[in-house]
Amino acid sequence: MNNPKSKIQNPKSIIGQRIPKLDAPDKVTGRMTYGHDVTLPGMLHGRILYSRYPHARVLNIDTSRAGQLPGVKGVLTAADNPPTKFGYGKDNTPFKRDNVRSLRDEIAGVVATDPDIAEEALALIEVEYEPLPPVFTVTDALTPGAPLIHPERKSNLFNSFDYNHGDLETGEAESEVVVEASYRLPYVNAAAMETSVVVAQFDHRGHLTMWSVTQIPFLLQRDLSEALGIPGSQIRIIQTAIGGAFGRGLDIYPFEPIAALMSRKTGKPVRLAFSRHEEFTAGPARQPAQVTIRAGADKNGKLTFRDVSMVLDIGAYVSWGSVTPLVMMETAASLYEVPHVHFKADCVYTNNPVTGAVRGYGNPQSTFFTETIMDRLAEALRMDQAQFRILNSNRPNTETPQGLIITSCGLKECLETVAAAADKGSADGAGGVGGIPPLSPRHTLGMKPNKGGSIGAPGQESNGTSTERLGSRQLTMDNDKVKRGIGFASTLNVGGGARIYRSDGCGATVKMDDFGHVTLITGSSEIGQGSETVLAQIVADVLGVQVSDITVLNSDTDVKPWDVGVHASRTTFIAGNAAHIAAKEARAQLFETAAEILGVEPDQLIARNGKIEVIADKATEDNPKSKIQNPKSISLGKVARSRHFREGGQVIIGEGWYDPPTKLVDKDTYKGNISATYGFGSQMAEVEVDTETGIVRVLRLACANDVGRAINPMAVEGQIEGGAQMGLGYALTEELIVKDGQVLNPDFRLYRLFTAADMPKIETFLIETDDPEGPFGAKGVCEMGGTPTAAAIANAIYDAVGIRMTELPMTPERILAALDKKQKESA
Amino acid sequence: MNNPKSKIQNPKSIIGQRIPKLDAPDKVTGRMTYGHDVTLPGMLHGRILYSRYPHARVLNIDTSRAGQLPGVKGVLTAADNPPTKFGYGKDNTPFKRDNVRSLRDEIAGVVATDPDIAEEALALIEVEYEPLPPVFTVTDALTPGAPLIHPERKSNLFNSFDYNHGDLETGEAESEVVVEASYRLPYVNAAAMETSVVVAQFDHRGHLTMWSVTQIPFLLQRDLSEALGIPGSQIRIIQTAIGGAFGRGLDIYPFEPIAALMSRKTGKPVRLAFSRHEEFTAGPARQPAQVTIRAGADKNGKLTFRDVSMVLDIGAYVSWGSVTPLVMMETAASLYEVPHVHFKADCVYTNNPVTGAVRGYGNPQSTFFTETIMDRLAEALRMDQAQFRILNSNRPNTETPQGLIITSCGLKECLETVAAAADKGSADGAGGVGGIPPLSPRHTLGMKPNKGGSIGAPGQESNGTSTERLGSRQLTMDNDKVKRGIGFASTLNVGGGARIYRSDGCGATVKMDDFGHVTLITGSSEIGQGSETVLAQIVADVLGVQVSDITVLNSDTDVKPWDVGVHASRTTFIAGNAAHIAAKEARAQLFETAAEILGVEPDQLIARNGKIEVIADKATEDNPKSKIQNPKSISLGKVARSRHFREGGQVIIGEGWYDPPTKLVDKDTYKGNISATYGFGSQMAEVEVDTETGIVRVLRLACANDVGRAINPMAVEGQIEGGAQMGLGYALTEELIVKDGQVLNPDFRLYRLFTAADMPKIETFLIETDDPEGPFGAKGVCEMGGTPTAAAIANAIYDAVGIRMTELPMTPERILAALDKKQKESA
Repeated sequence: MNNPKSKIQNPKSIIGQRIPKLDAPDKVTGRMTYGHDVTLPGMLHGRILYSRYPHARVLNIDTSRAGQLPGVKGVLTAADNPPTKFGYGKDNTPFKRDNVRSLRDEIAGVVATDPDIAEEALALIEVEYEPLPPVFTVTDALTPGAPLIHPERKSNLFNSFDYNHGDLETGEAESEVVVEASYRLPYVNAAAMETSVVVAQFDHRGHLTMWSVTQIPFLLQRDLSEALGIPGSQIRIIQTAIGGAFGRGLDIYPFEPIAALMSRKTGKPVRLAFSRHEEFTAGPARQPAQVTIRAGADKNGKLTFRDVSMVLDIGAYVSWGSVTPLVMMETAASLYEVPHVHFKADCVYTNNPVTGAVRGYGNPQSTFFTETIMDRLAEALRMDQAQFRILNSNRPNTETPQGLIITSCGLKECLETVAAAADKGSADGAGGVGGIPPLSPRHTLGMKPNKGGSIGAPGQESNGTSTERLGSRQLTMDNDKVKRGIGFASTLNVGGGARIYRSDGCGATVKMDDFGHVTLITGSSEIGQGSETVLAQIVADVLGVQVSDITVLNSDTDVKPWDVGVHASRTTFIAGNAAHIAAKEARAQLFETAAEILGVEPDQLIARNGKIEVIADKATEDNPKSKIQNPKSISLGKVARSRHFREGGQVIIGEGWYDPPTKLVDKDTYKGNISATYGFGSQMAEVEVDTETGIVRVLRLACANDVGRAINPMAVEGQIEGGAQMGLGYALTEELIVKDGQVLNPDFRLYRLFTAADMPKIETFLIETDDPEGPFGAKGVCEMGGTPTAAAIANAIYDAVGIRMTELPMTPERILAALDKKQKESA
Repeated sequence: MNNPKSKIQNPKSIIGQRIPKLDAPDKVTGRMTYGHDVTLPGMLHGRILYSRYPHARVLNIDTSRAGQLPGVKGVLTAADNPPTKFGYGKDNTPFKRDNVRSLRDEIAGVVATDPDIAEEALALIEVEYEPLPPVFTVTDALTPGAPLIHPERKSNLFNSFDYNHGDLETGEAESEVVVEASYRLPYVNAAAMETSVVVAQFDHRGHLTMWSVTQIPFLLQRDLSEALGIPGSQIRIIQTAIGGAFGRGLDIYPFEPIAALMSRKTGKPVRLAFSRHEEFTAGPARQPAQVTIRAGADKNGKLTFRDVSMVLDIGAYVSWGSVTPLVMMETAASLYEVPHVHFKADCVYTNNPVTGAVRGYGNPQSTFFTETIMDRLAEALRMDQAQFRILNSNRPNTETPQGLIITSCGLKECLETVAAAADKGSADGAGGVGGIPPLSPRHTLGMKPNKGGSIGAPGQESNGTSTERLGSRQLTMDNDKVKRGIGFASTLNVGGGARIYRSDGCGATVKMDDFGHVTLITGSSEIGQGSETVLAQIVADVLGVQVSDITVLNSDTDVKPWDVGVHASRTTFIAGNAAHIAAKEARAQLFETAAEILGVEPDQLIARNGKIEVIADKATEDNPKSKIQNPKSISLGKVARSRHFREGGQVIIGEGWYDPPTKLVDKDTYKGNISATYGFGSQMAEVEVDTETGIVRVLRLACANDVGRAINPMAVEGQIEGGAQMGLGYALTEELIVKDGQVLNPDFRLYRLFTAADMPKIETFLIETDDPEGPFGAKGVCEMGGTPTAAAIANAIYDAVGIRMTELPMTPERILAALDKKQKESA
């Protein structure tokens, strides 16, 4: 998008360049040091013994045999716990003392010279249990007289959210059509390639250093302080290279204080690393939910109301899973313009696995039910799906009834773009499947909305030419049995931070050495999202250098300034603004000295190509301050040295701090502008449904996103594609199957991720709206790639075969069951 | 010293506390990571082949057999050199190409999987030489027609210094007495416990990271850039824990670029570590010199003139050894008030080992000849030694003819203190020897100087009671043969930095986390001197915390702000001021927020005991801004969090930069105020000389030093004692014996350091003069402990047995020879 408001002064700006991630070479050559690679002198290894029962009283633990195994250096139980509780609900302890509440409850830990010895020792620990009646469903948990997971709380209901704007009755009265549906949403694991790992070490002062895969180093400092009962001032967090996080690292979990306790008990550094099995069973999952949504629209196709109620299973201990309703209500209340909204959510304890944050943080769930309901409304109105959404689209410079202040907004353009992509088909064969021709034209945008706007009915057969083009991976299929369809969905996501804590800030320091090399010390963290690269681009643009001239330091709480952590797609926006401020301060120092040397005013200068250049020549020759005869430019290193190597000299160092102009939502009404800007996106999925096998193949996924400005289009596309990969899994394959509190598929054979070979062609379209608050106009994009995917696919499945899927993932079994049910109903 | 001008506002200040070094526990428990401990994945090991001849043409190098040895990964020669030269004189290259000029000239290098394999491969390298006539003395080197070490220079004279103030003829005419002597000063090795070591690694960008024991990380960045021909912006220096430096690390030496070349050639990280033998033969030595000094005093005992000329052997390549005359002339021109001074020094190339900086940097040499000449003058005047020095002492708030601006100055007090110590004797038995009673009173201070002021003549016998008290280590000796004497010497040393480079600055960042933990990122380096602890005390005092609440980061050029390096006793003063500035900025932020919370003005607040306290209660109750009912204090963490966790919040971070108000000396006259303040000290040595064996035993060493203010008296005493240990070695035992360009004693068996068991009792007296520019009044002390020691001992030897020693070290052989000569002369 050609934007005349662009803030860029630099004609060959590094902003907007496709620059490979700075850490890519080290990652692909194996030189990167991940947590599993951290080895300290004398380091020991820890393993954890988990409960045998989902709910039981622990009568006795005998660790004597385990302690005698050669190589075992320590055995820990709840007797080693500090007296404090920790976690979002202050309901957790490192080891469990009297009661266990889930099969991932930590009973004991062994520290040994070798992880295998520690594992062997676990088997020697004898635990005597008295099983208690378990609760595995939210319905059971809320039944009066149900066994209490935390008896001191008197109820298994942890918390409730109740949000309102407008008036539902008014909304319903204004409605021409009303639709309603109920949904069941599954457990999903973040499934990072690297399992959770931590190395803990105490120094002679009793200060703890923890090498960690956390996403919230500064908050973990606080959380560990609570969990261990030592001052936060005595805790240093060093983030290792992180092999995937996706929300897993947004809270403290018992293994982290356990590692610290192991280190303190043995007096040695201790590495505690999850197996893949543990990663699935003891890692935090996207929480399952039962949702009912009702929504209406008036005769003009304008939305009238939404009414959402849900119950979430948060498991045996509270983590950030219990706060996802805040995000879900944002989609329900503010995605598209809806005058009347009610949203209610209850978070309920069970004896199931603990839940937490996973990328999108409630939004994949809420977008799934909201956007499939949008589809039903359009259908009921007999409106074109894209047109209906455009009509109701959020608009720039508006405020939603929830109090979200929408500044830049490209939702309409996103919808137009994916609708056009649907009409055009995929021309090239570069994707996971061959070039896909369009179905017959389905959208005639620009026409006025009317009930006849929908062209083409659900269940249209795919044309006969498509299968020939799909390449060798194409299953042979009977075209009569394989139906094609397209579906749309949009997403609204915070794009300018999210004030969940009182501070949403981030600090940055930019220093330039005597040779023009720049160090950016940023509070933010690199967790694979490419933040180092984007932040380096921002600083490089301001200072007129290349990203290779910049070293980004971002891993050590003792070195870097504060940051709230990596969540809510906030790093480019928040840390980017902080880096921008610091870089501009450093540049002002460079300009001051360069102006003095060159005999010009600072505002005549520009930083580019490693030099400070004069952009206007006037007055240089006559200026008595000029030390050099009519110069045109001077290298950055020379400016830095000139400023520095003299009596009363100074070095180049700029400080930046950015906390966005946002508010905490009101604690009663949940209203308020939580983010400084909002990202938008739309996806168009084209699918084939094999009615005989139930297999859904996604042929194309067109993703258009309002990214404000793409500082690094390649990185943005990577974020969107990565998000889509998780969205595809959420839609079609990923489910942590939990039965009686037990995870039945804790490995990658049974828990099916979308692999590179499974991926459809992803078409990404970056809509640049030049956000007024974002650094160079950028806003956050991390989560948007995956949030609308399941809804778009579900809508495409309906388009293909006429079934409305309300349960995820949409497995062949579930597709076949729905087709069967539909056939029976129509029979 | 009770100082009414003290700047300290904090009644229980941490300034002046005896706090153990922060890194001591890690050092004594072996947890510290020294350069020899740095191990990187895939790391290889390098070894260097040195020349077989001190001067030769290299005809051929055959590395083929070495390259075939299993485990060898690369063999390098001058063919691998970049085209540039490096070093202070730009006369050095990593490997030597055509000519070798000393036995430490690097011919080739081997990289292997193991240092022993690399060593074995060195023996397989065949080098064909054509020997050239060598030059081993400065006299030979300056003889017309002498072989030229660097033929392109046309002369072996590298540089000359010629300094004048006043007029020698006038001075001589005003003199009542004139004395003259010539001196021969030896090679001395820094003899750090840790040998030189470096680990070099290139990343995928071609950027070099070097783990190094350097003292000048930022200058090494520049030096390596020159030596390797890569931009300085691509070089990162990480200082490891440093096991002794003492000036060794003030320049680049060939092993450093060689390690980088080895890494680049093999594509692997390479560790290159010196053996002890190499440390002695290839490390930079304190340069030998031949000195002649004439000096006079008038009939009132006032100094009239000094005339010094010297020739220094700088070896085959120039390093900072060639700049030590700058410091030597400072002693000659400005220690005591001398109206007429001439100083001349020539630095000469030879085929001897390379020389460099060693602690004191010229000052032990110049103090030795200046203060033994002072002794001769006092003797000639028949004045009391201490009284004569006090009479001529530098005074506060004066400017020397050299342009040194003396602000605080406690030289007189230092002299009075050691004179009193001489009179009093040592009362306790805590030192290396038992309590030493005083000789008969020697000093009656306060009396007017007169020629009869000297009490007691040279050669006084020790009294008979002393030997009984000297404990079990006392040799049996005939008291007739063992003579006791005392001697004095003083020192002048830069104490407020030294503007050798155009910048003498240092940067600091102080950040406080949410829990009151403080990180100080300082440009300065810890090389064992205790700077971390002193800087932590400065910051702790300002912020009202304990040193255990502070983490000092100081090892990584990418993290820390610029600093010129560790030399010239500058860290406490320069880095201390920078840290002080940064801490005060951070405190101002704390006060701003605390004032707002407490409803008072910032100037009513004080930071102490981890809290911000109100020091005046007025107006708090009525203040509408007050949020807390008449509070008395608030914890630092709470203030930090309050400032931070709110909309528009900020974190606590202060930046400091300090470059002292000094000047580069004039390049022609060598005049100018090089340091922002000057340290002074005096020592009194009491010795026994065994006239039969020539053995000199130092019984006591009383050291009084004007330290401005002792921020950590224990650390200051440690510095003085450590300096004295080197001074004792310089006086009595340490000499690198070089014959025909070869070091004959390259190990600790033959090169004799003063060990703990050898040390005499050291009495330290800290004279606090509250320097107006120093942080909390402090000035630098690092080098002063060792500079006057040799002179004090030589003067004591004269006092004991009447011989004037002019050659160091004063070994038994030299003592016996001098006694023999004296006996023959008197016979």
